[in-house]
Amino acid sequence: MAETRVRIRKRKTLTDQLYGQILEQIVSGQLQEGDKLPSEHQICDAFAVSRPVVREALRRLQEDHLIESRRGVGSFVRKRPPQGLIEYASADSVAGLMRAMEARMTVESATARMAAQRADSADLTKISDALDALEQSMALRQPSRDPDFAFHLAVAEASHNEVYVAMLQSAQEVMQRAIDVAQSITRGGSQARVDRVLLEHRQIYEAILSRDAEAAGLSMAYHLLQARQRITDHAREE
Amino acid sequence: MAETRVRIRKRKTLTDQLYGQILEQIVSGQLQEGDKLPSEHQICDAFAVSRPVVREALRRLQEDHLIESRRGVGSFVRKRPPQGLIEYASADSVAGLMRAMEARMTVESATARMAAQRADSADLTKISDALDALEQSMALRQPSRDPDFAFHLAVAEASHNEVYVAMLQSAQEVMQRAIDVAQSITRGGSQARVDRVLLEHRQIYEAILSRDAEAAGLSMAYHLLQARQRITDHAREE
Amino acid sequence: MAETRVRIRKRKTLTDQLYGQILEQIVSGQLQEGDKLPSEHQICDAFAVSRPVVREALRRLQEDHLIESRRGVGSFVRKRPPQGLIEYASADSVAGLMRAMEARMTVESATARMAAQRADSADLTKISDALDALEQSMALRQPSRDPDFAFHLAVAEASHNEVYVAMLQSAQEVMQRAIDVAQSITRGGSQARVDRVLLEHRQIYEAILSRDAEAAGLSMAYHLLQARQRITDHAREE
Amino acid sequence: MAETRVRIRKRKTLTDQLYGQILEQIVSGQLQEGDKLPSEHQICDAFAVSRPVVREALRRLQEDHLIESRRGVGSFVRKRPPQGLIEYASADSVAGLMRAMEARMTVESATARMAAQRADSADLTKISDALDALEQSMALRQPSRDPDFAFHLAVAEASHNEVYVAMLQSAQEVMQRAIDVAQSITRGGSQARVDRVLLEHRQIYEAILSRDAEAAGLSMAYHLLQARQRITDHAREE
Repeated sequence: MAETRVRIRKRKTLTDQLYGQILEQIVSGQLQEGDKLPSEHQICDAFAVSRPVVREALRRLQEDHLIESRRGVGSFVRKRPPQGLIEYASADSVAGLMRAMEARMTVESATARMAAQRADSADLTKISDALDALEQSMALRQPSRDPDFAFHLAVAEASHNEVYVAMLQSAQEVMQRAIDVAQSITRGGSQARVDRVLLEHRQIYEAILSRDAEAAGLSMAYHLLQARQRITDHAREE
Repeated sequence: MAETRVRIRKRKTLTDQLYGQILEQIVSGQLQEGDKLPSEHQICDAFAVSRPVVREALRRLQEDHLIESRRGVGSFVRKRPPQGLIEYASADSVAGLMRAMEARMTVESATARMAAQRADSADLTKISDALDALEQSMALRQPSRDPDFAFHLAVAEASHNEVYVAMLQSAQEVMQRAIDVAQSITRGGSQARVDRVLLEHRQIYEAILSRDAEAAGLSMAYHLLQARQRITDHAREE
Repeated sequence: MAETRVRIRKRKTLTDQLYGQILEQIVSGQLQEGDKLPSEHQICDAFAVSRPVVREALRRLQEDHLIESRRGVGSFVRKRPPQGLIEYASADSVAGLMRAMEARMTVESATARMAAQRADSADLTKISDALDALEQSMALRQPSRDPDFAFHLAVAEASHNEVYVAMLQSAQEVMQRAIDVAQSITRGGSQARVDRVLLEHRQIYEAILSRDAEAAGLSMAYHLLQARQRITDHAREE
Repeated sequence: MAETRVRIRKRKTLTDQLYGQILEQIVSGQLQEGDKLPSEHQICDAFAVSRPVVREALRRLQEDHLIESRRGVGSFVRKRPPQGLIEYASADSVAGLMRAMEARMTVESATARMAAQRADSADLTKISDALDALEQSMALRQPSRDPDFAFHLAVAEASHNEVYVAMLQSAQEVMQRAIDVAQSITRGGSQARVDRVLLEHRQIYEAILSRDAEAAGLSMAYHLLQARQRITDHAREE
């Protein structure tokens, strides 16, 4: 059992490393948009990893919209992420950050929905205060991880279910690193991008304030979807 | 900040205690189905707690289908849970168990959906083995918490996103207590109830095996909804 | 434009016919569980249809859990539906019935959710009356299409959004045929199966009555998922 | 039965008229933001309608974020929609338009999700062509109802389930009126608003193109949520 666990962890590490190595080649331009990747077989040989590791890494690169797999043809580079991505995070850690964003979408759409139904006035003040702090910090183009995390935690607390809060805290470290990366990229981006990030947070707050559970859950899911795409998406926002 | 946190924790404890006290009166028959509860004001006085504590406790009793609030009229007992509920769990802890079930529904519908898309053959074997162990254990009417938790953990691992696994583990203790209570009640129940619990697990496994993500997520959500209702629901299953 | 539409309709007809022909071979036992289907290429030739028609038909057979496609290997028969399926419906029409069930899941999870939030006492009476009529009719093993449809329509009306009602009515004919087939198969089935169908309807009604929107939407989705599987699923219920 | 149906239709008409009359008072400024509405009882008298009609109209005004009901206190005006709203649509018809948007959210999140899984190249071309036509038309600030509806219909057809298409067509008239109103308001709005509407459509198309079912469903739901809010929301976008 313990040995199985070690093997799983090792395979995950290898997968994340392979993901990171292919990512680096895309970011550096060694692999260009439209380029075909080597075959699964060639990747196995080149990186000395097993077939399942290659498949998992390719599956994730595709889910993160970085490559596109065409059945029976092969995999192709879809888009080139911003240089900043592998400056702000080690390439090995990017796959893990994306998984953290996936898990956040699940948990935080639920907390936003419930916050709209259950928040009392103290909760609303706390969310609103975090939003104000985030707006001030981002207006000054300062690192804004703490008010950002505080906003999301305040929404979770307004769900009045401490199990969700504990879940977010159990993933706090990787969540905060994901926020750091996204914030760093945004901070170097256009004013329009900064405005959009703030608007997304404001919409979540307003939906909660309006007691509109569906809108709150949806606005949170949309915000995290956008945040996830901002991490790997170069061109759109400039 | 630290002080706020203490105050929040204290209010939660008071709420759960009040929930537990009203629950005990319902289980013992002191409050009968259809009976009207005292007013919010009277409850404040009787239990020496503040209005927000009373409202939160009543909101939760209603969400757990134990009472029904009619706007402008008052709150009424809806159903009497099984005696076993407060034998297997302390009355104070029941509200917390129900919140754990709520959070599980959120996280585990997602893990089941993703397992259907991402499970490899090793994952499927692990889920299937846990299911076999659960069936054997329940057939013998033995305590089945471990194979039950193993089944749900194996599904989470098949999501290939370790953040979900960490989230479930962060709530492991309260989840296992919730499983214990549900299992204890089922074990004392009819064969039909035992069969139903097993069928629910089998449907989740089959949907994952069929690579039907929607069916997998839905079957998991339905199973946990039923499990939640089995905890407080007396009459239906006999 | 008009011509495009004709071409689309024709392709759909061909797809449904091909689906029906393969289905007949499975039901009749000409293709057994585990058997490998001919290749896409061979099917094109044998049935004189184009590649997209074959792919669409196979995709649907897989979504309906009748076959399983293994990447790079081929398609295999997964299960043999009950004989009754192609007695109660023409084989050509089965794919269409399954699509109607898919659309119902979408619309009716929403109507059930909203009914839980918006139903007034007249709505609840109407749903409850339809449920009583369904129980009586099914107890007598009579054709129960009308009370079944009436139940679902009453839930839709309780959403207080007439657009949903119009949508269900626009699909009324194919919905009623799908209900007919499912009911015919159930009527010939075990008492346990009849009981399960009734329990599913009762759970929807109770969730609406409890004002539990999430449970109502989920119970409806689960009921329609099960109904869809009962149409093609032979072995499980006996 | 027929008589019941007439009564339901009549009550719906009365509700929509009352909704329209209160809406007109808000748009005209007769009722200002923050103002308290008369009590349910007073509204019954003033408009000579029954209590259920008043409650339903107030419930809808609240769901559409126009008023806010505080338990035990009363209802207050939350925001003042743009003057254009009751120029482009009769006040009586606005409640109906909002219900059409609600039903679209349900059906079109599903069609977008399925389009991401099932669209073939002909489908993608059709969606892309409709998007191009929409961009050209909106760039010229021309009425853009037809390319807008064509985009949404092309997505629905790409679900390869004609029942969804029939459902949208059954609501075509009210959907097109809702699009007209939203488009008219947008056309009179800032360039930023026009850009945002186009970006929302583009995100849906890109998610479908990337075969990302979750992102496609979410982007569609978010677009329709925003469209719904743009209908009644004055201040935000200027």
